[in-house]
Amino acid sequence: MSGDRGEDALVRIIRELTSRAAGRGAGVRVGIGDDCAVLEPSAGAALLAKTDLLLEDVHFRRRWAEPADIGWKAMAVNLSDIASMGGRPRWALVALAVPEDTSADEVVAFYEGALAVAGPHGVTIVGGDTSSSPAGWFVNVMLLGEAVGAPCLRSTARPGDTLAVTGALGRSAAGLAVLERGAAPGGVQAAQVADVTAAHLRPRPRVVEGAWLGAAGGVTAMMDVSDGIGIDLPRLLAESGAGARVDVDRLPIDAATRAVAAALGADATAWATGGGEDYELLLTCEPGAVERLRGGLAERFGTTLTVIGEIVAGAPAARWLSGGREVAVARGFEHFARPPAASGAGG
Amino acid sequence: MSGDRGEDALVRIIRELTSRAAGRGAGVRVGIGDDCAVLEPSAGAALLAKTDLLLEDVHFRRRWAEPADIGWKAMAVNLSDIASMGGRPRWALVALAVPEDTSADEVVAFYEGALAVAGPHGVTIVGGDTSSSPAGWFVNVMLLGEAVGAPCLRSTARPGDTLAVTGALGRSAAGLAVLERGAAPGGVQAAQVADVTAAHLRPRPRVVEGAWLGAAGGVTAMMDVSDGIGIDLPRLLAESGAGARVDVDRLPIDAATRAVAAALGADATAWATGGGEDYELLLTCEPGAVERLRGGLAERFGTTLTVIGEIVAGAPAARWLSGGREVAVARGFEHFARPPAASGAGG
Repeated sequence: MSGDRGEDALVRIIRELTSRAAGRGAGVRVGIGDDCAVLEPSAGAALLAKTDLLLEDVHFRRRWAEPADIGWKAMAVNLSDIASMGGRPRWALVALAVPEDTSADEVVAFYEGALAVAGPHGVTIVGGDTSSSPAGWFVNVMLLGEAVGAPCLRSTARPGDTLAVTGALGRSAAGLAVLERGAAPGGVQAAQVADVTAAHLRPRPRVVEGAWLGAAGGVTAMMDVSDGIGIDLPRLLAESGAGARVDVDRLPIDAATRAVAAALGADATAWATGGGEDYELLLTCEPGAVERLRGGLAERFGTTLTVIGEIVAGAPAARWLSGGREVAVARGFEHFARPPAASGAGG
Repeated sequence: MSGDRGEDALVRIIRELTSRAAGRGAGVRVGIGDDCAVLEPSAGAALLAKTDLLLEDVHFRRRWAEPADIGWKAMAVNLSDIASMGGRPRWALVALAVPEDTSADEVVAFYEGALAVAGPHGVTIVGGDTSSSPAGWFVNVMLLGEAVGAPCLRSTARPGDTLAVTGALGRSAAGLAVLERGAAPGGVQAAQVADVTAAHLRPRPRVVEGAWLGAAGGVTAMMDVSDGIGIDLPRLLAESGAGARVDVDRLPIDAATRAVAAALGADATAWATGGGEDYELLLTCEPGAVERLRGGLAERFGTTLTVIGEIVAGAPAARWLSGGREVAVARGFEHFARPPAASGAGG
């Protein structure tokens, strides 16, 4: 760390920043400053726990991601997992390793970004770890939440259920394509470019939607779309032991994504199935519940819910259909995989 | 990852390994495989949460640390934090980023190392994240525990309390010196070399001792010694708003550490105060309780407890005394600090 600051000084800055943001957070008996955080879970609630890594040059590039963006996204992706279970996020631990020449201001900006997305959901940062890094930024956020009722799992979809997704898909991939290119594509409105790059840098997890869906009744299974539905849906199917038919033509792709794809000569549908990082909620529900759920999301949160297919009996694989014919779709991102290839089975 | 394995295949291996190790862990409703782990906290227990980073070439070198050692240590350092609060460790989330050419066997060995130290304490690995890394191994373990009674904090030491430490100090630094040197020093018994290198590579956290101390009564404050008492003790003092007098001549340094120090021309006392990574418990207690605590630890666990000083009123700094005179001692490891220097105040 550049400047005359040691680790303890850094911890003091973080402690002050996080406690100012949260007051003394609800259910926090001891926060940053002792060996462990001491937390008070709600009586009878199930505890939800999730962790996600963000690494420089794997998940983001410093060329286009500011420290505040990194903090936002590291927190947002975990919030999305709590949301996908219908839970309430509560407490976060943030581990951060940065190169020695990182300034204290950059570290503060990172925490401010994390707090900007966590704070409105009542999440307190209660602990963490800091380290110097020999090579780039390494971030690991662990988020704890609670589910008062039964959490929405991946393993409980049933044949006959309707398959639906919130919001729009492919926006994050469109934003990434613009960021990697380094310049806005010609012929696309500035507002659309800003919209998709923000979707990539600062995704908005569906926390309030997830909590409402979990309590609304009729949802049979839910997960968030982090790697792209081309790879995430087969994960849900594998856990549930069922198949799915997906109508590719019904995948929700918004105008900004289509405009960027057209300008760059890219395939918006491939972004929607294989781009990942949209952090929308993929759910299955009783067929009779979908209109009620769609209406509730629209009315309360202005969030769309689009039916894209159905769960079917059989092998845990997805069939992707367009104009009634089976097609291959781009799969999502997978670490340690050979380069992604089109796959009809999606599994 | 080398070999024809993708991320999902890796997750399946980890899931199988961790569930075989733990059975269906107590309090685990949903483990690896869904968006979040779903856990069932004990009624009325406080939740303890801790996270620690381990980075290649910052915290260990692959030249001398095997994957199983890395897994062991990443888990052990978190177990030590739960122990220092007198808590019971329960559930772990493990985030791991490794270079693309890492074999699946190495990843399995890493988890086996983590399970080897976690399993005997009833800890289940319930989740995590895996990623490819552009530069070396990056490990972050989050551990959740529970405290049934009041957790032992850093902030509750009082003037007049006795200051004591379990086990021996400087062993890990002695082991590190041998490992970095690459060859055993001449004139030191092989068993002593093996003893100190094991202390560095596979520290044994004082989990059972911490739980017993937390329940025994008379302990007023407790923390674990992770960065060296030269820096950790001042942290306890800062939280408690009190000072300390430490008798440097009473610091527990064992024969193996002294033998390695003598052979390498190093200062065993500097290792004891500034080496860090011993993961012993530093505690304060009522003066009348120390003999009972010492006897209990010896009888139940064969673990020593050594009185090294006392808490005093005044500024939150340590005075280090040898032969009745104040001396400077080596401080512990601090990230982002200028190169460590001797410091009389230790703060």
